[in-house]
Amino acid sequence: MTRGLLIVISGASGTGKGTVCKKLLNDLPEVSYSVSATTRTPRPGEVDGKEYYFLKVDEFKAWIAEEKFLEYAEVYGNFYGTPLNKIEERLNRGKDILLEIDVQGALNVKKKCPEGIYIFLLPPSLEELKNRIEGRGTESPESLARRLKNAVAEIKIGLQYDYVVVNDTIENAAARIKSILSAERCKVSRNLDKFNLGTGN
Amino acid sequence: MTRGLLIVISGASGTGKGTVCKKLLNDLPEVSYSVSATTRTPRPGEVDGKEYYFLKVDEFKAWIAEEKFLEYAEVYGNFYGTPLNKIEERLNRGKDILLEIDVQGALNVKKKCPEGIYIFLLPPSLEELKNRIEGRGTESPESLARRLKNAVAEIKIGLQYDYVVVNDTIENAAARIKSILSAERCKVSRNLDKFNLGTGN
Repeated sequence: MTRGLLIVISGASGTGKGTVCKKLLNDLPEVSYSVSATTRTPRPGEVDGKEYYFLKVDEFKAWIAEEKFLEYAEVYGNFYGTPLNKIEERLNRGKDILLEIDVQGALNVKKKCPEGIYIFLLPPSLEELKNRIEGRGTESPESLARRLKNAVAEIKIGLQYDYVVVNDTIENAAARIKSILSAERCKVSRNLDKFNLGTGN
Repeated sequence: MTRGLLIVISGASGTGKGTVCKKLLNDLPEVSYSVSATTRTPRPGEVDGKEYYFLKVDEFKAWIAEEKFLEYAEVYGNFYGTPLNKIEERLNRGKDILLEIDVQGALNVKKKCPEGIYIFLLPPSLEELKNRIEGRGTESPESLARRLKNAVAEIKIGLQYDYVVVNDTIENAAARIKSILSAERCKVSRNLDKFNLGTGN
């Protein structure tokens, strides 16, 4: 049984991680989502247990104490974490798992799971990033300015990832990520069994 | 200017390297072929300067003396070599270059050019490999037996490559290789300029 791919998608605030991940999950039935936990307020339309597990701060701290997280971090005054949720077991059963994590959290996972595929989304330009954060309409002017300043700092952290994908359009970004997954499935290190011959890709 | 990709495709004798490379060059106008030199007899339809530079043994030895090769090797009593042919200059101008090299020769290039993309083609099975070598109709029974024995040994060498692609059909193999090229173009190490922002993929 070939081990599944651990796919970690990250990027600066407002780069469109959520939309790109939704498209990938829609197009790739073999990939399943690992829902993150957060203490931030749900945005309109977000459902508990689907986009996130929405926890109160003391609930989140209880999960930390119970070692239920692969990683967690505080971002803009809110907690975000990746629940373990049997991730290892699912990978060993050959299931591909998609994680959408903030920039710093993804690097923490990279230390623990270096065999994962770490993809950093970039906006086409800083101007476009600003438009997108404003357009979301859920940020106060103070929060917006803070997010933009942080985004510039976060983008430098992308240099520590494996792949960088410019999110000019959702379709282009998703197509590039699909190529990355196909290529990773061809890595020699993931196909040692093939050198005995007998089976196809 | 982003440096071009050096794409090296190899695989055991009879795996279909030539056919897959022809398909890729046909489908990908941005990729150009670097013609190898050999002292073996041309097969029906092969043209000097297109599939190979067909050289006499003393011509080949003169090219070696003039340091015209990136690598060369003797395989089944014939010489094969990769002429330098301004490869570096073309890569620096952003051109992608495809090399089709025998199993051992490709590893020699890997030592000199570790940033290249080393792709190993596998037959779907040993049985299929045998059929393909027989079907070519250009081998004596003695040569066929020797090729098969060597192929089994050569396949183990594939473990030292970056990617492995099963050549079940030309279309599938070419599609996988195209994904590998798209993914490699997204590698952070090939996109350091993007972290200043301002431009798309």
